[in-house]
Amino acid sequence: MITAFPFSAIVGQADMKRAMILTAIDPGLGGVLVFGDRGTGKSTAVRALAALLPPIRQVAGCPVNSERAEDCPDWAALDSHEITERPTPVIDLPLGVTEDRVTGALDIERALTRGEKAFEPGLLARANRGYLYVDEVNLLEDHIVDLLLDVAQSGTNIVEREGLSVRHPARFVLVGSGNPEEGELRPQLLDRFGLSVEVRSPADIEERVEVIRRRHAYETDTTAFMERWGTEDARERDAILAARAALAQTGTPEAILTDCARLSVALGTDGLRGELTLLRAARALAAYDGAAQVAPVHLRTVAPLALSHRLRRDPLDEAGSGARVARAMAEVLG
Amino acid sequence: MITAFPFSAIVGQADMKRAMILTAIDPGLGGVLVFGDRGTGKSTAVRALAALLPPIRQVAGCPVNSERAEDCPDWAALDSHEITERPTPVIDLPLGVTEDRVTGALDIERALTRGEKAFEPGLLARANRGYLYVDEVNLLEDHIVDLLLDVAQSGTNIVEREGLSVRHPARFVLVGSGNPEEGELRPQLLDRFGLSVEVRSPADIEERVEVIRRRHAYETDTTAFMERWGTEDARERDAILAARAALAQTGTPEAILTDCARLSVALGTDGLRGELTLLRAARALAAYDGAAQVAPVHLRTVAPLALSHRLRRDPLDEAGSGARVARAMAEVLG
Amino acid sequence: MITAFPFSAIVGQADMKRAMILTAIDPGLGGVLVFGDRGTGKSTAVRALAALLPPIRQVAGCPVNSERAEDCPDWAALDSHEITERPTPVIDLPLGVTEDRVTGALDIERALTRGEKAFEPGLLARANRGYLYVDEVNLLEDHIVDLLLDVAQSGTNIVEREGLSVRHPARFVLVGSGNPEEGELRPQLLDRFGLSVEVRSPADIEERVEVIRRRHAYETDTTAFMERWGTEDARERDAILAARAALAQTGTPEAILTDCARLSVALGTDGLRGELTLLRAARALAAYDGAAQVAPVHLRTVAPLALSHRLRRDPLDEAGSGARVARAMAEVLG
Amino acid sequence: MITAFPFSAIVGQADMKRAMILTAIDPGLGGVLVFGDRGTGKSTAVRALAALLPPIRQVAGCPVNSERAEDCPDWAALDSHEITERPTPVIDLPLGVTEDRVTGALDIERALTRGEKAFEPGLLARANRGYLYVDEVNLLEDHIVDLLLDVAQSGTNIVEREGLSVRHPARFVLVGSGNPEEGELRPQLLDRFGLSVEVRSPADIEERVEVIRRRHAYETDTTAFMERWGTEDARERDAILAARAALAQTGTPEAILTDCARLSVALGTDGLRGELTLLRAARALAAYDGAAQVAPVHLRTVAPLALSHRLRRDPLDEAGSGARVARAMAEVLG
Amino acid sequence: MITAFPFSAIVGQADMKRAMILTAIDPGLGGVLVFGDRGTGKSTAVRALAALLPPIRQVAGCPVNSERAEDCPDWAALDSHEITERPTPVIDLPLGVTEDRVTGALDIERALTRGEKAFEPGLLARANRGYLYVDEVNLLEDHIVDLLLDVAQSGTNIVEREGLSVRHPARFVLVGSGNPEEGELRPQLLDRFGLSVEVRSPADIEERVEVIRRRHAYETDTTAFMERWGTEDARERDAILAARAALAQTGTPEAILTDCARLSVALGTDGLRGELTLLRAARALAAYDGAAQVAPVHLRTVAPLALSHRLRRDPLDEAGSGARVARAMAEVLG
Amino acid sequence: MITAFPFSAIVGQADMKRAMILTAIDPGLGGVLVFGDRGTGKSTAVRALAALLPPIRQVAGCPVNSERAEDCPDWAALDSHEITERPTPVIDLPLGVTEDRVTGALDIERALTRGEKAFEPGLLARANRGYLYVDEVNLLEDHIVDLLLDVAQSGTNIVEREGLSVRHPARFVLVGSGNPEEGELRPQLLDRFGLSVEVRSPADIEERVEVIRRRHAYETDTTAFMERWGTEDARERDAILAARAALAQTGTPEAILTDCARLSVALGTDGLRGELTLLRAARALAAYDGAAQVAPVHLRTVAPLALSHRLRRDPLDEAGSGARVARAMAEVLG
Repeated sequence: MITAFPFSAIVGQADMKRAMILTAIDPGLGGVLVFGDRGTGKSTAVRALAALLPPIRQVAGCPVNSERAEDCPDWAALDSHEITERPTPVIDLPLGVTEDRVTGALDIERALTRGEKAFEPGLLARANRGYLYVDEVNLLEDHIVDLLLDVAQSGTNIVEREGLSVRHPARFVLVGSGNPEEGELRPQLLDRFGLSVEVRSPADIEERVEVIRRRHAYETDTTAFMERWGTEDARERDAILAARAALAQTGTPEAILTDCARLSVALGTDGLRGELTLLRAARALAAYDGAAQVAPVHLRTVAPLALSHRLRRDPLDEAGSGARVARAMAEVLG
Repeated sequence: MITAFPFSAIVGQADMKRAMILTAIDPGLGGVLVFGDRGTGKSTAVRALAALLPPIRQVAGCPVNSERAEDCPDWAALDSHEITERPTPVIDLPLGVTEDRVTGALDIERALTRGEKAFEPGLLARANRGYLYVDEVNLLEDHIVDLLLDVAQSGTNIVEREGLSVRHPARFVLVGSGNPEEGELRPQLLDRFGLSVEVRSPADIEERVEVIRRRHAYETDTTAFMERWGTEDARERDAILAARAALAQTGTPEAILTDCARLSVALGTDGLRGELTLLRAARALAAYDGAAQVAPVHLRTVAPLALSHRLRRDPLDEAGSGARVARAMAEVLG
Repeated sequence: MITAFPFSAIVGQADMKRAMILTAIDPGLGGVLVFGDRGTGKSTAVRALAALLPPIRQVAGCPVNSERAEDCPDWAALDSHEITERPTPVIDLPLGVTEDRVTGALDIERALTRGEKAFEPGLLARANRGYLYVDEVNLLEDHIVDLLLDVAQSGTNIVEREGLSVRHPARFVLVGSGNPEEGELRPQLLDRFGLSVEVRSPADIEERVEVIRRRHAYETDTTAFMERWGTEDARERDAILAARAALAQTGTPEAILTDCARLSVALGTDGLRGELTLLRAARALAAYDGAAQVAPVHLRTVAPLALSHRLRRDPLDEAGSGARVARAMAEVLG
Repeated sequence: MITAFPFSAIVGQADMKRAMILTAIDPGLGGVLVFGDRGTGKSTAVRALAALLPPIRQVAGCPVNSERAEDCPDWAALDSHEITERPTPVIDLPLGVTEDRVTGALDIERALTRGEKAFEPGLLARANRGYLYVDEVNLLEDHIVDLLLDVAQSGTNIVEREGLSVRHPARFVLVGSGNPEEGELRPQLLDRFGLSVEVRSPADIEERVEVIRRRHAYETDTTAFMERWGTEDARERDAILAARAALAQTGTPEAILTDCARLSVALGTDGLRGELTLLRAARALAAYDGAAQVAPVHLRTVAPLALSHRLRRDPLDEAGSGARVARAMAEVLG
Repeated sequence: MITAFPFSAIVGQADMKRAMILTAIDPGLGGVLVFGDRGTGKSTAVRALAALLPPIRQVAGCPVNSERAEDCPDWAALDSHEITERPTPVIDLPLGVTEDRVTGALDIERALTRGEKAFEPGLLARANRGYLYVDEVNLLEDHIVDLLLDVAQSGTNIVEREGLSVRHPARFVLVGSGNPEEGELRPQLLDRFGLSVEVRSPADIEERVEVIRRRHAYETDTTAFMERWGTEDARERDAILAARAALAQTGTPEAILTDCARLSVALGTDGLRGELTLLRAARALAAYDGAAQVAPVHLRTVAPLALSHRLRRDPLDEAGSGARVARAMAEVLG
Repeated sequence: MITAFPFSAIVGQADMKRAMILTAIDPGLGGVLVFGDRGTGKSTAVRALAALLPPIRQVAGCPVNSERAEDCPDWAALDSHEITERPTPVIDLPLGVTEDRVTGALDIERALTRGEKAFEPGLLARANRGYLYVDEVNLLEDHIVDLLLDVAQSGTNIVEREGLSVRHPARFVLVGSGNPEEGELRPQLLDRFGLSVEVRSPADIEERVEVIRRRHAYETDTTAFMERWGTEDARERDAILAARAALAQTGTPEAILTDCARLSVALGTDGLRGELTLLRAARALAAYDGAAQVAPVHLRTVAPLALSHRLRRDPLDEAGSGARVARAMAEVLG
């Protein structure tokens, strides 16, 4: 068992860390797409965030990690209802994975010949209540990405084959990393990710030395390093839990609604998912900041995360998507 | 179980809503193709319409949702003929679906070795008496689209394999969404959809704010929201049921027949399906309007829905299909 | 059971109707290829012609529709030799069909383990003594088209696998529809269709209104409509039966042979199938007209049907194939 | 059973008929490739030649048509050694055929579990001592053509799978037809056909009328037609049989050897198969003509058949291969 | 059993030999990618290095070569815990290998029907504690390379199928050879190899003669040759073992950290793996050199190995990656 | 059984014959690649050489043709150890062959269920101690060529599947023919063939007439022909056997080593296989010539065979590879 690198010890990468924190506050935000350079710690960050969150309580042996025995599927055939604790799960989706392995497989043969409902759960079952990490999501086949997004949105995985049907809860945050230089996601799929962030290797020498120094310290004396950063991680965890609790009470002024719509129109984003996510992310951030209601500053902070990946390509506008979002914010929010 | 968003609470999108209402009045119109931007609520609208319609009555457990025991297939082996009510079904056709899963599969092995007629019904069985929704229909393989349109038209699904044959009723309205930027349907297939509509993200800020506001209200307090819009939905349902009852008595003046033909000739639509559908849609609209017979205004309203997707591409005419239909109406109907 | 639209009630489309009548008189003419617009009633016409022909008498349960018990294959294992009547069969060949489903499948496993000649007949068996309709024949794989044409020509379907062999009669008229804009048949395959016709949507308003009117009448009160057109259909049937009887006695003057050859040479058709079919079609038409022998007028009428699809493409001659046939007739027949 | 059209009644097509007669005299010549227009009776000619040859005598039920029981494979398990007569076989190789169906299939499963040498013979077995006709050989997969040519050359079909091995005689003349406009054979494969001929539709009206007239007579009164041409066919058969008997004694002057080599060098044919086949074909023709030894006239007649398909493409020489062979003959033979 | 060529007897190729020695000191460095000419002894060098290392001690029959019985997987079902010695394993990964063969295969059928955990270990099991050599790694499918790098990094191979899961240690050094002229590795995969070296055929005649001379001596009298070079190999082995022991105590001055970061920034390498590997390789080299702490000379020696394959392609900089690394070292290290 | 054409009776083609003789003297030279025109007797030459060599002695029924019972694999289950003689095997590798058929197949099913090591040997087993001939090796899939070269080099065929492993000796000379106009071998694979030769159709009339004359004589009276050339073949066999015996004693002066290296450097061949093969081939030729040690004349003769296929393509040097080797020899050897 390898000890995860502490979330707080990650140097820089503010946007990526913020996006992940927001999904920990409101898992319904709809997944994060992380664009950018290789070797920038995307996978490390997901694992670190999950390790920072409080352990989940689940019925021992429940294949979908449920806390209540009645939420464990009947095909699981659990002997006892004992409760155990385990870390928030982080499941990796390997390149070249088959649909059966993702969704789980129904064994029709067995069902018919022995009358047993034989279901072998897949990666979606194991990801319930946690994170599903897909490296290089742009290299996955479209119908798998489509399936992941459908399940992530509905929170339920339904496997049907020849008249038999199995369903189980599959509430997880989908985190995909992608390198836009190696093939793009279709806009239809991009739009269905809640947030996106871009990460780059730091250009600052001090920051880079700090990365090496921390990594070296972590590898040389892991225990000491974990102790030193444990306090930071605990503080972050407390902030996330407080925000979760405050979320429902966070207010949404009418003017904020109008700002959301005007931002989307100014940017010409397709459809309405952009502004709906923008509002939702701003509320999570307001709750994290301890604010009573959403303010323009919250929109300003999350707009690049919620809108950048929803812009139509504009051949007459050579500015990158980040610059276009900034320009629209200046126009709309002043 | 998620409560569907109310049909009446959908902001704007008049054409899409009208096309769906017409198919609820005359399901024989032949399917609706919805072109347009992602995130414009196509899937939401289908589900909302089905939720608005009165529940269907069916023999409990009947795999094709039939009301009368004699309409349930013999391979269903029902124990009782008890009648239950259930919402009008809406079935999703996933990307990458196999033909077997769509049509159902005949298990030849079992038939031969055990003498049982072993049929595992597919999505077409489940869609009987309801809606079949195909997102991104332009990405489906041609032979699947062909099959869906054949069954939608004949109302019967026939599965044959090695001399065995099973058939069951499969009357459903096919609703397909497509993004013309990502591959087109062959004109042969386009022509076999009854109606088409184009949807766009609203450009009006107020309309967009209204979308966010309603969505926010729906997510924050679903019960209150459903109550508020329930009355509207009930009114819509009553109008549809009244139109269904009036349809057979709605008259068709000779001049309307000529107008249908002249419109099609003026537009140079291929074949004769255009004008036949135009007449049929106009009659449904007249019935919905409570008119005794079809009038030019009904033609005018439904012509873009019935004809736009049946125009040949004309390289010398740069106008969009909507403009071309409008121009032809001005010529023909004055 | 849907009642077929009456053949006589089809508006216009003289060439298509004539070609189909000729195949009803002499099924050895070799299939009809119908080019043209979608929605012009190609499928309707085949079904209508078959419905107009007198029912066939066959041994009940015979899988190849034979009239005499000795013509039913031995693998059919019929219990009785009772004779029943049934409409002339019209079989549809779906897009994406497999070779096994077309030809029928030999179950080698069963043959070897149980010593039974296990053959599951395919679509060719069911089409015997009737029509096989292939929509969009140009989208079928070449080897399937090749197989259909081979069987259509020889009248026998032979299925061989691993030393076992089954054969059964498969005499049918192959009717294929194709849209030349969506991929072409190889000239090798084109040449093996006996006749071809081109159909277009009518440009005349009155004709189109008449189509709508008849269709509307048919849908509104089918019984009355069938009664009204039954007399016309009966007259057509009688004419076809009379022509069948007269065919063998219809004379062929030497000058007609020369005209056939000169027409083909003038057109530069490849091979000799063109003139052989031309003569054969002209004889069927003469018999239909009640003429004692073939006259130039018969050649003139059927030449476009027999020759248009056999012209080499001539890059220096921009005239369509119809115009080229007309020009050649003017030269040769004066 | 359809009576084959008489070989002698085929109008024109001298080259094709000559090439086929030569293979009937010396089956070791190596197959004939027939290029050219569709509908020129290639398939008819093969069938006609086989029908003209004297029937073969074979052990009844022998799957490779052998005359002596010891030449029937042991896996055939014949009950009796009774001799029957049957026409020279003509086997068609369908488009899209599998290798197993061509070579026959070894059933390893059965061999291992029951200790039986289970071989299901294929088309090569059935073609032994006859003709194998491949329409559109240029559309076959290369490895199948390769296999056909290997077996045709060695006279033996060897099927090996997982250590088991079955062999049977497979001496046949391979006749392939091809349309060079639809994909070409690789030169490697072309070179392995012994002879090639090009056929064209006749341009002469009288000749075409004669074709129609004979075809019409054949279809109208087959018996009378067969009687009339039977005498001609018998004369041709006698000439072939006499040539077969004389072949071994036909002399080959040294000067003829030099002419063969000079012709090949003048034409720049690759490899040495060209001149070896040229000599062999000339000897068969000399025997057919009743000559005691090969003379330049024989070379002159068969050179186009033996060499045309072996020319390298020469971008600087626009003459067709026929003209290039004629020019080389003029240079070399004077 | 072929005796491996002695590592010390390899002529020249200093970089390749150094990279391999470093992986023998710190197997956690992450694999070596060897670019370059064919026939330069890449495969020979891996085998030679493994042969030079001391034999490993392992439980006899343990499928993952473990030294302690508790590290042998339970599915191995070992009868005894006897310890044997064997050479460090070198496993070849053949072109076209399947994923099952690499990872090992779980036999689900057997597990379900007999309740046995049936796992057939693959190449990764056999490579544990040794080397995995992949010739032409750029021709492997991406998902296999990805899998190899994942396992090499984590040291554990996990095979999961339908709910069953097997894991075993798989600590090995991945050595891949590649010819950049024949297809490239994606930068994502390049970056995950620890070190890279480029090898070329020597241009110096004396060096080449020496290669031939040694090879000839090796083939002519292997025993004498092995004796002569055995002393050299023993000296190399001792140096490696000493370095392994000293590695943990080798110090890392802060200035060295800064140098690592500055080198990476000067070169614009993506991500942070470059500088982390650079530091790690420099420590291994310092240990090999017997130095108490890492010095700039160590960085200078290993920088080309650790950074060359991590440069972005720079279209404005025509210098090769070696020259670019040298230039950056001159700038940064002076 | 067809009698092979005598090796000595092959007209011309000195290089091809020499290369084959060298492989008969030292089978470790590494295979021969024969480029060139079709129909130049490549396959004939391999068969002729094998027929000329003395028969091999082997245990009757041994699947790998071994002389000693202990070299026959245990899975062969031989009943007796009787020794028989058989001609040196020549195995053909057909186009489109599967890997299983080449390497032999392990029947895992049988191994697991019956505990038998069930191996069906493949073509590599049958080729042991003989020749493996691959026509058109450039059309084989790369991984098969790779496999052939690996086994040819190691002399052992190892088949592994799911933890089971079978090995057997497979020492053979690989002879591949290829037409460079139809797709090329990758340089990686070219380099692994020991020798290459180019064959062309003779341009000389006398030589061609001689080919026809000998072929004609061979076909007309095989017995007489074999007698006449048997003496020549016996002389060749004796020379080969003498060379085999002398090979180990043939000396290698230092100057020759330098010449080898200088030739390779002058030609810029990649890697070092070129000069190693050059030396080895020169030694075999020296032994064949009865020389006590290798002399420059031997290098001169074999350099084109050993080096031509190892040149890098040089876009600035339009000379063919033969001319480039000749020029380098002139420079280096004077």
